Amino acid sequence: MIKVVLLGAGNVAIHLATALREARDVELIQRFSRSTKNNGFFDPLIPVTDDLQKLKEADIYIIAILDDEIALFSNELGHLKGLVVHTSGSVHIDAIHKNLRKGVLYPVQTFSKERILDFRKVPLAIETSDKTDFALLHKLAVNLSDQVHETNSRQREKLHISAVFANNFSNYMYLLAKEICLENELPFDLLKPLIIETAGKITDLDPYLAQTGPAKRNDKKIVEKHLLMLEGEKKEIYNIVSRAIRNTYS
Amino acid sequence: MIKVVLLGAGNVAIHLATALREARDVELIQRFSRSTKNNGFFDPLIPVTDDLQKLKEADIYIIAILDDEIALFSNELGHLKGLVVHTSGSVHIDAIHKNLRKGVLYPVQTFSKERILDFRKVPLAIETSDKTDFALLHKLAVNLSDQVHETNSRQREKLHISAVFANNFSNYMYLLAKEICLENELPFDLLKPLIIETAGKITDLDPYLAQTGPAKRNDKKIVEKHLLMLEGEKKEIYNIVSRAIRNTYS
Repeated sequence: MIKVVLLGAGNVAIHLATALREARDVELIQRFSRSTKNNGFFDPLIPVTDDLQKLKEADIYIIAILDDEIALFSNELGHLKGLVVHTSGSVHIDAIHKNLRKGVLYPVQTFSKERILDFRKVPLAIETSDKTDFALLHKLAVNLSDQVHETNSRQREKLHISAVFANNFSNYMYLLAKEICLENELPFDLLKPLIIETAGKITDLDPYLAQTGPAKRNDKKIVEKHLLMLEGEKKEIYNIVSRAIRNTYS
Repeated sequence: MIKVVLLGAGNVAIHLATALREARDVELIQRFSRSTKNNGFFDPLIPVTDDLQKLKEADIYIIAILDDEIALFSNELGHLKGLVVHTSGSVHIDAIHKNLRKGVLYPVQTFSKERILDFRKVPLAIETSDKTDFALLHKLAVNLSDQVHETNSRQREKLHISAVFANNFSNYMYLLAKEICLENELPFDLLKPLIIETAGKITDLDPYLAQTGPAKRNDKKIVEKHLLMLEGEKKEIYNIVSRAIRNTYS
């Protein structure tokens, strides 16, 4: 049985807590939070503390807090004997205090409090500083998820950039699409099935092969017409992405 | 019973044929195709011709061919008495020959031969030149789909631009994400659940509220670090989309 303490109370911590509770061979023995704001999202049976001196002895401590706060926060954990991992895509493993046994458990997913997720389907990118700790973190990870991948800090940084394109930027494309709809008295609902299908296609079709549209088929007439109808940043984004698509397929 | 003739044999025609066959109160009495290439994707029981002079009398003729060919093709249909509609998002209704009763039935979806789609979930944007024809086209549309919306040609053009952002550009973001993965020996599979979840969120969360990431929270340090790791068009796209996100939320 792997004993785990969870530090943090944001979206990642909320989903991790549920996954840890449901995992076999894992016991979530305590959680740490300075704020009580999200208490309602956690199982009340998990013991909680706001005092770092009262952390229980555990095999693994999981830090799920804001990226910028990881380094400073881990300085307060120098007394811990267990493995200390953070959950960030973009923070180097060495942000964790040098006295500690260090690791990373990065869930490659976007979490909202409101949406239920099957954590077993969340890919986990894992890393440890010490090779002997890897087996322990790997054991925890496979208890949580069906998809576990070892990545070093450099790769994880690249994975995080990929995720920015795949998640943040595609969502922004939806946002722009919605704005154009509303400006023209069109319900955004008209586009929802298209958005779901576009994403669904990647499960069995390479995005290179799934690409369609005027830029892909180098339909200059339509691209020019669309550019004339757009302004500002929408026009700029339409222009540069269309050019990039054209270059990809020419 | 609405009698329909389908002209064309591409992806849209293939999916429309299936939907027309399954619809109540609709009879697909014939299809027209100059090529036999995709014959295997159509029900062999549907009569097929490659001679426009042999088109049967129908209530509605649906042209599902390339955008650029619609105008010229419809010139050959001047003898038809039924309503003639095209299926394009970007072509004006008046591209159809002036002697004809004109309409548009634009399915707002991306179609592949390989993927099965529930056509009832495909939104249809419809338009007719003559008000008296609208009831007929509307009756056909609601027999095919649960989501039918009247849009004029100007709105449909805007809807098509929205679809370029929502579909073509988001797919291109996936493509860039995949390239970054492959360059760093990371399996693209790590990103697939994230992509599906990002799209799935829009069914119950406004993309404005769903937006996350370094640009959204104005994390200049991460944005700068990512820009240093990118080159060429990826860097350019990262830069302009991040700036646009920042401006949207500032």
